[in-house]
Amino acid sequence: MDSVRNMPEFLELLPPVEALELLLKNLPEKYQKFERVSTLEALGRVVSKPVIAPEDLPAFPRSTVDGYAVRASDTFGASETFPMYLSLVGEVPMGRAPGFKILPGQAGLIHTGGMLPDGSDAVVMLETVQNAGPGEVEVLKSVAVGENILRPGEDVRKGDKLLTAGMRLRPAEIGGLLGLGLLDVEVAVRPKVGILSSGDEVVPPQVVPAPGQVRDINSYTLSALVAEHGAEPQFYGIVPDRLQDLRVYLKKALAECDLVVITAGSSASTRDLTASVIQEIGAPGVLVHGVNVKPGKPTILAVCDGKAVIGLPGNPVSALVIAGIFVVPVIERLLGMTRDRPHSAISARLTTNLSSQAGREDWVPVRLVLTADGYLADPIFYKSNLIFSLSKADGLVHIPASANGLPVGEMVDVELLSL
Amino acid sequence: MDSVRNMPEFLELLPPVEALELLLKNLPEKYQKFERVSTLEALGRVVSKPVIAPEDLPAFPRSTVDGYAVRASDTFGASETFPMYLSLVGEVPMGRAPGFKILPGQAGLIHTGGMLPDGSDAVVMLETVQNAGPGEVEVLKSVAVGENILRPGEDVRKGDKLLTAGMRLRPAEIGGLLGLGLLDVEVAVRPKVGILSSGDEVVPPQVVPAPGQVRDINSYTLSALVAEHGAEPQFYGIVPDRLQDLRVYLKKALAECDLVVITAGSSASTRDLTASVIQEIGAPGVLVHGVNVKPGKPTILAVCDGKAVIGLPGNPVSALVIAGIFVVPVIERLLGMTRDRPHSAISARLTTNLSSQAGREDWVPVRLVLTADGYLADPIFYKSNLIFSLSKADGLVHIPASANGLPVGEMVDVELLSL
Repeated sequence: MDSVRNMPEFLELLPPVEALELLLKNLPEKYQKFERVSTLEALGRVVSKPVIAPEDLPAFPRSTVDGYAVRASDTFGASETFPMYLSLVGEVPMGRAPGFKILPGQAGLIHTGGMLPDGSDAVVMLETVQNAGPGEVEVLKSVAVGENILRPGEDVRKGDKLLTAGMRLRPAEIGGLLGLGLLDVEVAVRPKVGILSSGDEVVPPQVVPAPGQVRDINSYTLSALVAEHGAEPQFYGIVPDRLQDLRVYLKKALAECDLVVITAGSSASTRDLTASVIQEIGAPGVLVHGVNVKPGKPTILAVCDGKAVIGLPGNPVSALVIAGIFVVPVIERLLGMTRDRPHSAISARLTTNLSSQAGREDWVPVRLVLTADGYLADPIFYKSNLIFSLSKADGLVHIPASANGLPVGEMVDVELLSL
Repeated sequence: MDSVRNMPEFLELLPPVEALELLLKNLPEKYQKFERVSTLEALGRVVSKPVIAPEDLPAFPRSTVDGYAVRASDTFGASETFPMYLSLVGEVPMGRAPGFKILPGQAGLIHTGGMLPDGSDAVVMLETVQNAGPGEVEVLKSVAVGENILRPGEDVRKGDKLLTAGMRLRPAEIGGLLGLGLLDVEVAVRPKVGILSSGDEVVPPQVVPAPGQVRDINSYTLSALVAEHGAEPQFYGIVPDRLQDLRVYLKKALAECDLVVITAGSSASTRDLTASVIQEIGAPGVLVHGVNVKPGKPTILAVCDGKAVIGLPGNPVSALVIAGIFVVPVIERLLGMTRDRPHSAISARLTTNLSSQAGREDWVPVRLVLTADGYLADPIFYKSNLIFSLSKADGLVHIPASANGLPVGEMVDVELLSL
């Protein structure tokens, strides 16, 4: 390792929420890039500007039931004892204009989704009508104007805002856009996230490690996490723990990507080396070096010339947990997503006491066990660095900084480890 | 429409849970197809057989801290007042074998992740050591055997079961597999889901609808849902409401896919026509015709020659809600997933009374509103058929069949509409 002017961890560790605020505050509010994509391919993409309805949906009055299109006023007072008699003048074909009108005293057979004939303003359900004779129907129940029909524009009206910017497209929106003939949609370009692993001991997964070497894990957990959240991982490989190499790789990644993530090696000196290099490649540089969270204390948060650079701990468990806390929100910012979206969790009862240091935030991996009384959250205790401890976990339990721990039996919210 | 021997809705409507059980009971327990894929590309795929560790991880004893590799017995009794003096015999290089041994009375500088020299059995943290003089260290705190180290196999041991069949691969597993050099993995082939829309009024989204026509929505909401859950949608287009056409299209889809979903038109007669055709194309045929749920009563569940055929209501809202209840579990069965996985939800307080018919299960779309006291669930009231009512919703609230409704202020679980 080079001996360089190092940049040691800041003495005061910031709480994660404050650290994230500081990071986001130093990033441009909006630096989304946009592209138009086929709506068919847009599932999970994030809309980059409001989408306005180009026409009414439905475009014409439709029946919501099987029955008879009528003038509601013709049915007033109708009941089983005093039925009203209307003359049947036609059947509305599906997918075509009716081809006839409803005049006073007339009715037309109509199917669910059929177009209402001019003159009609309601539909009597099939169940409340009897065939009185050829060409005649007997209405046993009155209907109000508008009953059992959808008016034009009742789903959406031309000019309505269908979708707001920052919304992730779900199946309902994909169908809705296509239902309006919107065949493409403007979405945020998937942000490019540069991923670097550092460490002289790290080799690619294809290599059989020699004694003292370990295969890279972080590049792959992180690229999977990044992909899961709608960004595009870009690998820069394994960087040797040398100032010159680190500088070259980081500069290249920063130039080519929207966000750079580096697992900053496992020893303190390597992390300090990483911080020094980040500090020199762009302004304002390192904002946070050390966060009051377990796992993940030696986290580096920086902004270099408008782009976030995040140094994660080398420990794979810490790296993945911390990426969820800091990398995901930056990706969401790049996608133009709003930050107050609902975040789902599972309510579960803790199976054991969890201790934690007051003032520090903890994230504890737990296995969920379904019982007749709901879920149990069973903590997984692990030493540093064991990736398969996360693999055994369904999710993470958060112990806030204000707590000394959580007692057995406590109801906790478990955040699932995957989308 | 042809006049055929129709197959009307069964008189007794099954509760959704029983309907699903009946459907799954009639499907083969296992009919997964497998393939090997690159682990790098396997995010979200479902493992089809247990994965066994091919080697120990770590493969050698590693330090979990920066410090000095020692024989623990040499530190017994060490304290700030009575330090122990050890002679410094070398520094462990990262990524290589140490190249020296630790004999009694000796210590070696080691970084986090470094390989322990032979003879050492613990690591003293840097913070509890002082440099006493050239080639000498002063240990201020004793360590136990095994302290601050990971033993070979402590993450996973050769032969351990890493993953069980039916597990969906998350970022942690992708990294863990690659960390063990497992470059590919056997996963379930994405099931092919045939999707048919029926209805003489339905036209593709590219077409400008004539009066009486509407653009297809269901094919696209359903294909997005299917893709979201790891299956591959296959379009069969819009089928005219005629017995012969329906028969030809359904047979083709059944032959080519693992599961067939048809939105069975909106009128009762179209739905009955669909049921008749499903009944004749394979055994045992229609198992359920009508489910006690709102929305979605006119649902058809069938098994034809070992494959599920599901007839969904034509109404886009019902079709999407019901697909979540019946189509998704069949996809999960095809993927070999277990059914007791945790299902996340958001706890929220209802903003208004919700009425429902006792004996019937209801699913009500709600918007979530974040307040200082947590989430509010604000029901979206809608007429049949309005796809953008789902677009406004964050999730669905479930009213069980046993309830008459839910009172304002009740805490409810909201299932999010997307993964």
